[in-house]
Amino acid sequence: MTIRIGIAGYGNLGRGVESAVHKSKDMELVAVFTRRDPAGVKTLTGVPVHDLAKVSEWKGRIDVLILCGGSANDLPTQTPELAEFFTVIDSFDTHAKIPEHFANVDKVCRANDTLGIISVGWDPGLFSLNRLLGQAILPDGNDYTFWGRGVSQGHSDAIRRVPGVKDARQYTIPVESALTAVREGKNPVLSTREKHTRECFVVAEEGADLDAIETAIKTMPNYFADYDTTVNFLDEETFRREHVGIPHGGVVIRSGTTGMDGDNKHVIEFKLNLDSNPEFTASVLVAYARAAYRLRSEGVTGCKTVFDIAPVYLHPASPEEQRKMLL
Amino acid sequence: MTIRIGIAGYGNLGRGVESAVHKSKDMELVAVFTRRDPAGVKTLTGVPVHDLAKVSEWKGRIDVLILCGGSANDLPTQTPELAEFFTVIDSFDTHAKIPEHFANVDKVCRANDTLGIISVGWDPGLFSLNRLLGQAILPDGNDYTFWGRGVSQGHSDAIRRVPGVKDARQYTIPVESALTAVREGKNPVLSTREKHTRECFVVAEEGADLDAIETAIKTMPNYFADYDTTVNFLDEETFRREHVGIPHGGVVIRSGTTGMDGDNKHVIEFKLNLDSNPEFTASVLVAYARAAYRLRSEGVTGCKTVFDIAPVYLHPASPEEQRKMLL
Repeated sequence: MTIRIGIAGYGNLGRGVESAVHKSKDMELVAVFTRRDPAGVKTLTGVPVHDLAKVSEWKGRIDVLILCGGSANDLPTQTPELAEFFTVIDSFDTHAKIPEHFANVDKVCRANDTLGIISVGWDPGLFSLNRLLGQAILPDGNDYTFWGRGVSQGHSDAIRRVPGVKDARQYTIPVESALTAVREGKNPVLSTREKHTRECFVVAEEGADLDAIETAIKTMPNYFADYDTTVNFLDEETFRREHVGIPHGGVVIRSGTTGMDGDNKHVIEFKLNLDSNPEFTASVLVAYARAAYRLRSEGVTGCKTVFDIAPVYLHPASPEEQRKMLL
Repeated sequence: MTIRIGIAGYGNLGRGVESAVHKSKDMELVAVFTRRDPAGVKTLTGVPVHDLAKVSEWKGRIDVLILCGGSANDLPTQTPELAEFFTVIDSFDTHAKIPEHFANVDKVCRANDTLGIISVGWDPGLFSLNRLLGQAILPDGNDYTFWGRGVSQGHSDAIRRVPGVKDARQYTIPVESALTAVREGKNPVLSTREKHTRECFVVAEEGADLDAIETAIKTMPNYFADYDTTVNFLDEETFRREHVGIPHGGVVIRSGTTGMDGDNKHVIEFKLNLDSNPEFTASVLVAYARAAYRLRSEGVTGCKTVFDIAPVYLHPASPEEQRKMLL
């Protein structure tokens, strides 16, 4: 059985899902749905594009609808709305609002016998999984999550709002000495400033006051004031050449002890080094879309997260093959 | 509800389980079972010791029996036998025989409405989980597993069988340059010799021919002949002081690409650095014992592996709390 996939929202994430589905032998991309004029959208694989407003007409022809909108404005309403008609999966990443989003999606899924998996990706997602595993296995210990080196879209956007800034990109960078201390099992207590630095690349408008821009960035509350921030100005051509990618990654570490006296130290580390944040997130979504399809086929309904999905559902091989090849 | 745990087999692993259960607030260790004379076995926490031959009398008084015997001689018969009476969990680690062991345990579990989780630990176990995740998320890519730096009991035993050797310990060590190449996404093809080296610490009998011992070790087929091996002789006192621990660890890496043209590289790395191999394995067993109890309470029976267990069952907090705290 080929799993019939639909994509709702066609930006970087949607295109990432399209290419990940293209490479999954057990899946077929049926259609892409957009709020824009479908006639103006061209897909990578030539798959047809339709109006998102009419997606409900596709009920029964799509096994899993992968929602590729944003967490701020799209997913809080889209995921519950579309769960009325489809098995849905999203990458909702506003950590503080996950319980609320879960409740909204769960209600619709239960009323319509559908399945939804929310907050799938790497954080929330694979990083969450590793935080859970670390605490479950080493109850005596400390958690550490570091992000980067990678592009923060939110911080890049914040810089672009500074007067005189034409374009900008911000990289979040873990402090190497902090990472080393954690890896060595030293269990340091780390302030915000001690965990990450922020590196900004800025294209200024012609004649702009560079000192004023730098000060505005470095003193910006919430975004930069609590960090050691460096600001680099560069010309537009160099910016376009050297800062085109969307790399990201990070590390989740659990450092704990075992034994009656806590004598033995253990460090569990999960690390991602990603050339393309959206394409990797898309790849995680597609693996969990496989799980969503299989679980729904078994009669499972309601809202789920990565915590609820047994690994066996993610891999295309049969359980027997998985045990033989991978265990 | 407190989960009532029993331990079958009281060596390094059994003691590790005892201290891990001691630190788990939702669990209580009911009894330890041994094939030795119970009167001669003293536990770390003072929990009573009983004859393993009479363990079936404890049916209904133990929720999960954690089997701490060896994979070569104990578990292939013990796990199926004890699954007749109890929800069981083991760390069976003979990779090639897992399908057979699974079938044997599954048959007994289904006939007796019990649950068994086999091959729990870090390899098989957490490493297997990461191999599965890596392949599921990045289908275009390569797997790498490195072990060490850590003690291989099998290789240490092999050295001890060489004439003139009084005691020995062997460390498996990943080749740093190979690891670096893999981490950089270079996807190298690595021979056995290029992945690991073997470092041996040997206490020789008085008057033994050291050159002959060294040659016997380095040319030993299967164990050492395919590796770059170093042999260090040392006196018994130094050996006891410096090689008393059982550290281990290793790395699972998935290196793959995404995008229509495979332009973007991604590296997923899971790394363990363990002071005590048996205590860490025990900690994994205890987390999965929690899952076994919860799944059996939901009516699930049959044989399972780490692939079949949704993460939510491993952590003591409720699903709601997990989503709020960890996702």
